Amino acid sequence: MSERVAVETPVLKKNDEYAAGNREWFASLGIAVINIMSAPGAGKTTLLEKTLPMLAGRYSCAVIEGDLQTDLDAERIRRVGVRAHQINTTCCHLDARMVQGAAATFLESPPEVLFIENIGNLVCPASYDLGESVKVTLFSVVEGADKPKKYPKMFRMSDCVVLNKTDLLPYSGVELDELLSNVRDVSPEAAVFTVSARTGEGLAEWVEWLAARVEKVRGR
Amino acid sequence: MSERVAVETPVLKKNDEYAAGNREWFASLGIAVINIMSAPGAGKTTLLEKTLPMLAGRYSCAVIEGDLQTDLDAERIRRVGVRAHQINTTCCHLDARMVQGAAATFLESPPEVLFIENIGNLVCPASYDLGESVKVTLFSVVEGADKPKKYPKMFRMSDCVVLNKTDLLPYSGVELDELLSNVRDVSPEAAVFTVSARTGEGLAEWVEWLAARVEKVRGR
Repeated sequence: MSERVAVETPVLKKNDEYAAGNREWFASLGIAVINIMSAPGAGKTTLLEKTLPMLAGRYSCAVIEGDLQTDLDAERIRRVGVRAHQINTTCCHLDARMVQGAAATFLESPPEVLFIENIGNLVCPASYDLGESVKVTLFSVVEGADKPKKYPKMFRMSDCVVLNKTDLLPYSGVELDELLSNVRDVSPEAAVFTVSARTGEGLAEWVEWLAARVEKVRGR
Repeated sequence: MSERVAVETPVLKKNDEYAAGNREWFASLGIAVINIMSAPGAGKTTLLEKTLPMLAGRYSCAVIEGDLQTDLDAERIRRVGVRAHQINTTCCHLDARMVQGAAATFLESPPEVLFIENIGNLVCPASYDLGESVKVTLFSVVEGADKPKKYPKMFRMSDCVVLNKTDLLPYSGVELDELLSNVRDVSPEAAVFTVSARTGEGLAEWVEWLAARVEKVRGR
């Protein structure tokens, strides 16, 4: 462990400097930046595919997609009519410098809301500030009720926790009450939504919360 | 990226040295070591809870549990009558030195088979050799058919891929044929099993394959 701590500290410090720069830059352009983090397969892209059309007409949006390989997710976003930039990285998280480079590709016509779909990883992205306005943890309920206690950092630092795949709950053996209680214990301040991105259940409440946060960030 | 690559290389090199030491040490003691890796909530502990009783009477087993926080998983393993040592780490993966320290706690009566349940993370553990004999990737089918293409490294390096939660397939919208095809494309050499650790479906085939590998490793 000691080598890792010793080498990661300057990397994180450098990242924080880039993130602070991003934050000023996004504020000067009036861009609300939403960082969506989750384990692999929790449904980040599906949530975006459903959320983006619900915001259409209210805000111009763009999406930065992070993946180890493939541009499958950026293609899915473009199919709902929204600009997307794919980052492929060998890294286990996005960092502020990657986001700066990707955001710059949208500058000819800056979006009002910029979503960042982070690498599917419930651990590392929690350590890397991207200069975002809002941090969202998405969690698939079938991952199990105990996970907020076992991976507390990402839940704790999030402004919002979206519990997805509620359509699978009846078949999963997972108790929603136990999961909700564990989320509240770890992250008492976060807004919590239970949704099924696939069926659309619960999405209206999530989108209203998000729009209110976007208004606040953009100072209206 | 450049800082990260520059600092990780010596860490990985040091880890490889520890891993080589572990490998010799485990061989000298006749211990077959099985490293089980997956995203959070794919069912590693449940797979172990079901697998361990099926190996009882054939091999003495022990388990190293890796988690960011809690010792919930070690407690679950002990409840099926198997020795377990919990590692709690701020790190996003287990490394060879952590495993060496944890394995040493079993040395009064060395197990014949030592399972390592890695941190729930489909990215970082793939880069850290632990000195194990067999690498297993466990994957929850509801994470989606595209994931082997998006997180190829862990699948590619595994001796075995266990596709879990098949009981949820009918409700998930995931096509098993597409998932199997993507696993084969990324990892053509791996043994592949489809199981439901919860219902027990498919576990006998997985356990037979595992026992055969244990025999081979232990030179019988």
